[in-house]
Amino acid sequence: MIDAAIRSGTADRPSIFEVFARSLPGGRRYGVVAGTGRLLELIGEFRFTDAELTWLENENVVDTVTLDWLADYRFAGSVWGYQEGEVYFPGSPLLVIEGSFAEAVILETLALSVLNYDSSVASAAARMVSAASGRPLAEMGSRRTGEWSAVAAARAAYIAGFSATSNLQAGRQWGIPTMGTAAHSFTLLHDSEEDAFRAQVAAMGPGTTLLVDTYDVTAAVNLAVKIAGPELGAVRIDSGDLPEQVAAVRRQLDGLGAENTKITVTNDLDEFTIAALRAAPVDSYGVGTSVVTGSGSPAAGMVYKLVARQDAAGAWISVAKRSANKATVGGRKFPVRELSASGTATAEVIHLGSPELATGSQRPLLVPLIVEGEPEARFLGADGTALARAHRAAAIAELPAEAFRLGRGDPVIPTRYA
Amino acid sequence: MIDAAIRSGTADRPSIFEVFARSLPGGRRYGVVAGTGRLLELIGEFRFTDAELTWLENENVVDTVTLDWLADYRFAGSVWGYQEGEVYFPGSPLLVIEGSFAEAVILETLALSVLNYDSSVASAAARMVSAASGRPLAEMGSRRTGEWSAVAAARAAYIAGFSATSNLQAGRQWGIPTMGTAAHSFTLLHDSEEDAFRAQVAAMGPGTTLLVDTYDVTAAVNLAVKIAGPELGAVRIDSGDLPEQVAAVRRQLDGLGAENTKITVTNDLDEFTIAALRAAPVDSYGVGTSVVTGSGSPAAGMVYKLVARQDAAGAWISVAKRSANKATVGGRKFPVRELSASGTATAEVIHLGSPELATGSQRPLLVPLIVEGEPEARFLGADGTALARAHRAAAIAELPAEAFRLGRGDPVIPTRYA
Repeated sequence: MIDAAIRSGTADRPSIFEVFARSLPGGRRYGVVAGTGRLLELIGEFRFTDAELTWLENENVVDTVTLDWLADYRFAGSVWGYQEGEVYFPGSPLLVIEGSFAEAVILETLALSVLNYDSSVASAAARMVSAASGRPLAEMGSRRTGEWSAVAAARAAYIAGFSATSNLQAGRQWGIPTMGTAAHSFTLLHDSEEDAFRAQVAAMGPGTTLLVDTYDVTAAVNLAVKIAGPELGAVRIDSGDLPEQVAAVRRQLDGLGAENTKITVTNDLDEFTIAALRAAPVDSYGVGTSVVTGSGSPAAGMVYKLVARQDAAGAWISVAKRSANKATVGGRKFPVRELSASGTATAEVIHLGSPELATGSQRPLLVPLIVEGEPEARFLGADGTALARAHRAAAIAELPAEAFRLGRGDPVIPTRYA
Repeated sequence: MIDAAIRSGTADRPSIFEVFARSLPGGRRYGVVAGTGRLLELIGEFRFTDAELTWLENENVVDTVTLDWLADYRFAGSVWGYQEGEVYFPGSPLLVIEGSFAEAVILETLALSVLNYDSSVASAAARMVSAASGRPLAEMGSRRTGEWSAVAAARAAYIAGFSATSNLQAGRQWGIPTMGTAAHSFTLLHDSEEDAFRAQVAAMGPGTTLLVDTYDVTAAVNLAVKIAGPELGAVRIDSGDLPEQVAAVRRQLDGLGAENTKITVTNDLDEFTIAALRAAPVDSYGVGTSVVTGSGSPAAGMVYKLVARQDAAGAWISVAKRSANKATVGGRKFPVRELSASGTATAEVIHLGSPELATGSQRPLLVPLIVEGEPEARFLGADGTALARAHRAAAIAELPAEAFRLGRGDPVIPTRYA
């Protein structure tokens, strides 16, 4: 496309692209934007290496004029968007990219990869957080998604309200609290469960979490308290019929004098099984597959569309495709969240054309993310990740209570064009 | 775990871990192993950098003895496994890792991340390939998965029988044929659809593929043939009611004398919609979201389990956990595929203990992948990827016809322990 646009003289036309989702996947009531901070860093360093350019040349993918253009590539445009952690609805213009056609269109795959994956994880994770009713959740799903997606998933889950991750790289790169756990292999490595527990307590202290379902849960809980004493930090249960098992283990621990020993469960949990454990004496959850795969909706369905461009005379033209079922709304958009007097969200209002000054009952949703090629520093790195987590908490607090119903339904507030 | 095992003197115990799946996701009849070649490269270069070690030290994740051990880490053990591209069934021992406990357990997350994601994509892609009945498929889903998972997905889909990918990095890194396409934004960038088509044909020649559903398909097909002539390579349809639309466009192209112009469709396809287009005059498919997200099963459900280890006296002990619903089968395994006289697969037979010499009707399934730390060169890089694609074709050709039914069902052959 860039090759052909350079030849036809249209590659430099000032253009506005928009990222949005036509619908929320899985009959969810709201989505959570994640990936923005990661994306800003990736756009800031988006370059073509000599090795890449040589390959493109050897394979005749583009001509020499385009190769030169790629060699000099550096995004110099501007981007506005929903702050990371913001909630969103169908049609919400999550990212607004302004630049020449060529410099903006080339970011499509990168922007969508990052936002679709990270937002899918965050949107699922936020439902698990509300299902957990304040009990902490740890993300433990690195092994169930691609090795670099695993790091992104840990970050997205943390933004959505998870407390920690087992992914150490996510801890190092994004400042996310990390936690570890012992696997069944650690118990099986030793000559007996007792040897394994003694080895773990010797290394980690009695505050550690012992895995009690390798052989027989009741016997293992007795052994755990015998070895670590009533100061035992927690026991982990990774199999079995959870609500009954958890209650039985709680009674057993209390009977052994280990009233402060916590119970953590980790058996293929998702938002529904977490909600089903609300009445059980669980202290924390470890979640794997379901959170890193978006709990049934592994891609958020976001698209990257041209919505306006200048013509040869420099006038802005709104553009939209009219494909059946996939029509787009042209033109630059200025979204606000309409709030009731008590501060509850009532509608997503998307102003077309000139920006409306938001009144007290309307919260503007676009913030500058990249200004003339420079990513906004406050959204980057570990600080940006922490900011996104705080923003998510505030944005979710505005939602009406029906937002937290787990069953399939419509978005909890309507999207209205104004 | 490594920290505690070093202290308890068990970290060096020779151990055997196994990767397997308890079941096939989504009621599928068979799975396709992918990711092995990628994994061998990643294990070969698995090291801890100074920056990583410093972080682990500062965060007190492990003690100094373990830090030293990590600083020297290099996998020196051996790995056997199913050749990449092989089909698999519940219980198939896909990877057998032999090394000290510590050097093997540390690979768990990496091995599972790579194999779970890549095999999920390949298993879905193989069904799309059979549903397409010989028509070529292009992988176009980079934007619907994490940015590095996208490269892995392109590779896995190619191994499973896709013909090409739109991911240029996958072309460069793994030697996969690449293809491109024009988006709606390219049409909307120009002052008219005619200008856009002329620009594309000028840059790419009449053999290009023109996207005809930005405004009105019938008008666009007329325009496309007017501009490119009957040598027009193809038209792409990305929306609408596909079977009827495709038939109408075929009649229109034939009526315009463009009998050789092909039709490619790309509208949210999966194995079911591809099968539904069997009677329509489609020439090729572009598949995005469904293939890179495993078409409903985004993780293959593989686990990494200790199955044997030596005791303090150096004797091998088979180990297994007995958790409810998650019990494992201990001991080293030697799997073979049992074949009928005509060469059709009839069972997955997993020999426990000493290897059985496979007779003419039994194909041994384990091949050496890493020998004392050295990955087998023939499985690496672009050559390894091509080899995996060829092996997949041969392995799938052995399956009985019922393997290609798309409905939910049991594995097409039983798994038997012997």
